[in-house]
Amino acid sequence: MNTELVAGADREQAVTDEVLASFDGTTDPRLREVMQSLVRHLHAFARDIRLTEREWEAAIDFLTRAGHITDDKRQEFILLSDVLGLSMLAVAINEPAVPGATEATVFGPFFVDGAPEIPLGGDLARGAAGTPCYVSGQVRSADGSPLAGVRLDVWGADEDGFYDVQYPGDGFAGRGWLRTAPDGTYRFWTVLPTPYPIPHDGPVGDLLSAAGRGPMRPAHLHFKAAAPGHGPLITHIFVAGDPYLASDAVFGVKDSLIVEAEHHTGGAAPDGTRPQGVWTSMTFDLVLVSDDVS
Amino acid sequence: MNTELVAGADREQAVTDEVLASFDGTTDPRLREVMQSLVRHLHAFARDIRLTEREWEAAIDFLTRAGHITDDKRQEFILLSDVLGLSMLAVAINEPAVPGATEATVFGPFFVDGAPEIPLGGDLARGAAGTPCYVSGQVRSADGSPLAGVRLDVWGADEDGFYDVQYPGDGFAGRGWLRTAPDGTYRFWTVLPTPYPIPHDGPVGDLLSAAGRGPMRPAHLHFKAAAPGHGPLITHIFVAGDPYLASDAVFGVKDSLIVEAEHHTGGAAPDGTRPQGVWTSMTFDLVLVSDDVS
Repeated sequence: MNTELVAGADREQAVTDEVLASFDGTTDPRLREVMQSLVRHLHAFARDIRLTEREWEAAIDFLTRAGHITDDKRQEFILLSDVLGLSMLAVAINEPAVPGATEATVFGPFFVDGAPEIPLGGDLARGAAGTPCYVSGQVRSADGSPLAGVRLDVWGADEDGFYDVQYPGDGFAGRGWLRTAPDGTYRFWTVLPTPYPIPHDGPVGDLLSAAGRGPMRPAHLHFKAAAPGHGPLITHIFVAGDPYLASDAVFGVKDSLIVEAEHHTGGAAPDGTRPQGVWTSMTFDLVLVSDDVS
Repeated sequence: MNTELVAGADREQAVTDEVLASFDGTTDPRLREVMQSLVRHLHAFARDIRLTEREWEAAIDFLTRAGHITDDKRQEFILLSDVLGLSMLAVAINEPAVPGATEATVFGPFFVDGAPEIPLGGDLARGAAGTPCYVSGQVRSADGSPLAGVRLDVWGADEDGFYDVQYPGDGFAGRGWLRTAPDGTYRFWTVLPTPYPIPHDGPVGDLLSAAGRGPMRPAHLHFKAAAPGHGPLITHIFVAGDPYLASDAVFGVKDSLIVEAEHHTGGAAPDGTRPQGVWTSMTFDLVLVSDDVS
């Protein structure tokens, strides 16, 4: 037995024990549980890898750079959570396992408050470049009953892979919200989503690059649906056939969320309009979980 | 057996497995080890506490606020590492267990580059308010041989508990560096350190407050010693009798680093000067670990 190593292990355990004890007096039991678990796991990580001083400094520097690149439009810490799979794990932990309900996926860093309301059947592209896409479906409760008047928030990137918040200046494009019809159906125009890299000019991008991981996300459109008496649903629809479905940088893909985008040239759209040139359509129903089930 | 819970556990494990696999192609073996260990421990933490979406949002917000309060003089991420005991754990992991060597402790967030050199016996207080304190000792190798010409960096807070970087404006006070004499001895004047709170007007302060923990550090003076052929030593000396020795907010206290501060009124100091009023003195030897031992 190497007594020096044992002494080192004791010395390390003594630090952990002292830190755990410092939270013994925390009166909020949930905060105490969270902080003591955090200390246990954080310390176990540092010990397992035999964290060096230089690596500790690199971690401090990483977090500092992440903080400094974060502003009201760029959220590097959400990106970090996303690429470490913590965001999808939180989804898995919190999503009620209700058969038939639409699966949730990551929220992502691109939702912003204040997006405009559009009428049912309206266009939320608002000038975002891309192939027109008609999206329609129905919002239902898990028992099959249609949910009328539900607020549906939708946001997506343009054909260059950029969200409006990444454009210079302000203004909304590819983003808006509408309410479902009395029969729970919804329909709107936007542009067909395309694959894009998550913002990778910051520390998270450096990490992906050093790890030999790509920054790409498969094409998707974000949905957030909130109906009275039902848990909010945050999800995407992904476009079938996308080359990045198996390597989403943020691990968000679920098979049930992959939707065929039908391509059309000319002809009449379901709403009677006659788009010029190529246009596309996707249909997707959202099934929400009632609060008394979850 | 609750099959729904099992399904949930499977779903959660599937996320973790997918994220771990995303680092399988990382060519740098150390980076792969660190990231896969981080993912394992981070995910285990989230699962153990059943992380809620709201808590995830609170964590993102906490890190964002920590990033935004951090600048070239305020380092909230180091404070966070300190109050979670990660800094002291890193010290314990990396410190060679060499009998007789001076123990290390936390670096802290207040070191800055560019501090002035002072002559042996000089005063590094440079106007910092407080009771004059004469500090002296010897720097030796663990084999007992004196180390001449070693650079000793010293920094400490004033009697109000503030470091110079917390003063308005620029300029150095209570901070400087000197070189040991040919016989390894050193001596300088500064002000007697007093206990002080770590900066607690940011998210780390909010955390301590919510957890019912105090922000105080016992009085201490920082030392950094770097000699050729020896690992750098980063440590403090703590003042015996301080009321916070048992509850240091950053867990930095070690018994071997506690030093008696002798109080004097009038009389001659060891350097022959005759300070006016009350002055103090402390002696502390620093024993460095030779590279071929560690």
